Amino acid sequence: MNEIKIFSPATVANVACGFDVLGFCLDSVGDEMTIRKVDKKGIKISRIEGFDLPFETELNVAGVSALAMYDAINPDYGFEIEIYKNIKPGSGIGSSAASAAGSVFGMNELLGRPYNKTELTQFAIKGEALANDCEVADNVAAALFGGFTLVKSLSPLEILQIPSPDNLYATIIHPQIEIKTSVSRAFLPKEVKLQDAITQWANFGSLIHSMHTNNYELMRRSLHDVIIEPHRSKLIPHYLDVKNEALNAGALGSGISGSGPSVFSLCKGVETANNVRDAIKKVYSKTGIEFDIHVSRINTEGVKVL
Amino acid sequence: MNEIKIFSPATVANVACGFDVLGFCLDSVGDEMTIRKVDKKGIKISRIEGFDLPFETELNVAGVSALAMYDAINPDYGFEIEIYKNIKPGSGIGSSAASAAGSVFGMNELLGRPYNKTELTQFAIKGEALANDCEVADNVAAALFGGFTLVKSLSPLEILQIPSPDNLYATIIHPQIEIKTSVSRAFLPKEVKLQDAITQWANFGSLIHSMHTNNYELMRRSLHDVIIEPHRSKLIPHYLDVKNEALNAGALGSGISGSGPSVFSLCKGVETANNVRDAIKKVYSKTGIEFDIHVSRINTEGVKVL
Repeated sequence: MNEIKIFSPATVANVACGFDVLGFCLDSVGDEMTIRKVDKKGIKISRIEGFDLPFETELNVAGVSALAMYDAINPDYGFEIEIYKNIKPGSGIGSSAASAAGSVFGMNELLGRPYNKTELTQFAIKGEALANDCEVADNVAAALFGGFTLVKSLSPLEILQIPSPDNLYATIIHPQIEIKTSVSRAFLPKEVKLQDAITQWANFGSLIHSMHTNNYELMRRSLHDVIIEPHRSKLIPHYLDVKNEALNAGALGSGISGSGPSVFSLCKGVETANNVRDAIKKVYSKTGIEFDIHVSRINTEGVKVL
Repeated sequence: MNEIKIFSPATVANVACGFDVLGFCLDSVGDEMTIRKVDKKGIKISRIEGFDLPFETELNVAGVSALAMYDAINPDYGFEIEIYKNIKPGSGIGSSAASAAGSVFGMNELLGRPYNKTELTQFAIKGEALANDCEVADNVAAALFGGFTLVKSLSPLEILQIPSPDNLYATIIHPQIEIKTSVSRAFLPKEVKLQDAITQWANFGSLIHSMHTNNYELMRRSLHDVIIEPHRSKLIPHYLDVKNEALNAGALGSGISGSGPSVFSLCKGVETANNVRDAIKKVYSKTGIEFDIHVSRINTEGVKVL
């Protein structure tokens, strides 16, 4: 096999009380990429469609992660990467992670799978670092493993796959505004009250328990973030209206996806997820801000060959 | 049935990364209590053996929790409580919780079980408040439910039973020193670094996942407390030596039990727990400080009728 076409999904990171460690994988939105073995050594980004991104390998997220793997193997041939981007950069649903994960997943397939998913995540983190100015794994892990992933630690990298109930769906709204990473980061508190931290880990432990026990109602009582949301939600226009209407329409919980501006809601069943979509649409239609909204089942597979 | 004799176990709270929310129940040490229906209305503490504790109902932890339940029911008879105390007050393994849980458990049995365990915990918290100056549920919940319990929230009170691997044992050392609650509390930080809080909830989520998946090695990598231990461990002489030797002897993790001075170690199998006991004994025997040490399986039943 000399060429492969893959689907690399969008992902949600910073899932409520699981800030910085819990992510999940979406199904209905993602990039497509073609990866091809070529005679010429090195990594070449040969085509980009959908959004305006750099062709220079070292400046392209998919290129950087591909190079990390390429350098580890150092084969006597090269790879070409074509990117058909559907996930808008900066939308908060893992656009860079999809690129970073996709290139290494595809190369790994063409090479006969020398690396496991944790090793692929390690390479993909290098690409993510280009986009984020620091190494983060929550989106790339969710993209590569699928389902819900807990990044237990970055060094050494350890990723846990958390089971989730079968009938879980996500509704995602992406308001078409830009939040600069530097601004979003400035809204993170450096210190937090011990009491709030205790509440957060009680909720997080509880959320993990709820997923092991298929307990949707406990999930509803656990999907709270008392640490980050109070700060960062100020950056997203009408955040509280969106959240309240989503919860009124039956969502188990809502929160900021990544560092925003997208907002996710988790729902039991596609019907509720559609109701939540309609309720959020109603809120945002009045604001004059353009937005995308979509419903997705949880993608338990992650990046896949098309 | 007019009289019942019960065993009310010792418990460990503040289990590493589960500070303030996770507790577990011991088997090899606990109080015995006799609870008796009597004609005279009210709650009377009729006998206390083992340690010098107040007989006045309102000043006795078992009395206060019993009164909370008694007032809720308001029967036309009363109860007498005898306490045979084995758990030394102030040892950090839930001495007051055993008293508080025991009296309400026993009364509930004599009354024909009108209350569930969460409701019993709610009454027992009132007794705990007398001993702790504030309402805490982690020890009483572990004593009443048995096994590992996560106090998800105090208001409303919600307790989750977390499954644990069958072959889990605890080794507990109780150095015979006194740590005043006020001093112990003064060693709690009011604010913590966001990065440390994230590490703590990653570990806690991971610990809950490890228990659902019977993964001892993940449990080992998760039983860390980066928030409280660095402060409170200073109050326990030779804490780090004890911990290091326990880990060298094979413990999955060690930490301060409650607010100390007891130190718990969790171990896979009774043989490892015995090795850990011997290793800790060796450390403490050199210090000149008197101590008790014992090994216990995890008690999955909680308070029980004898």
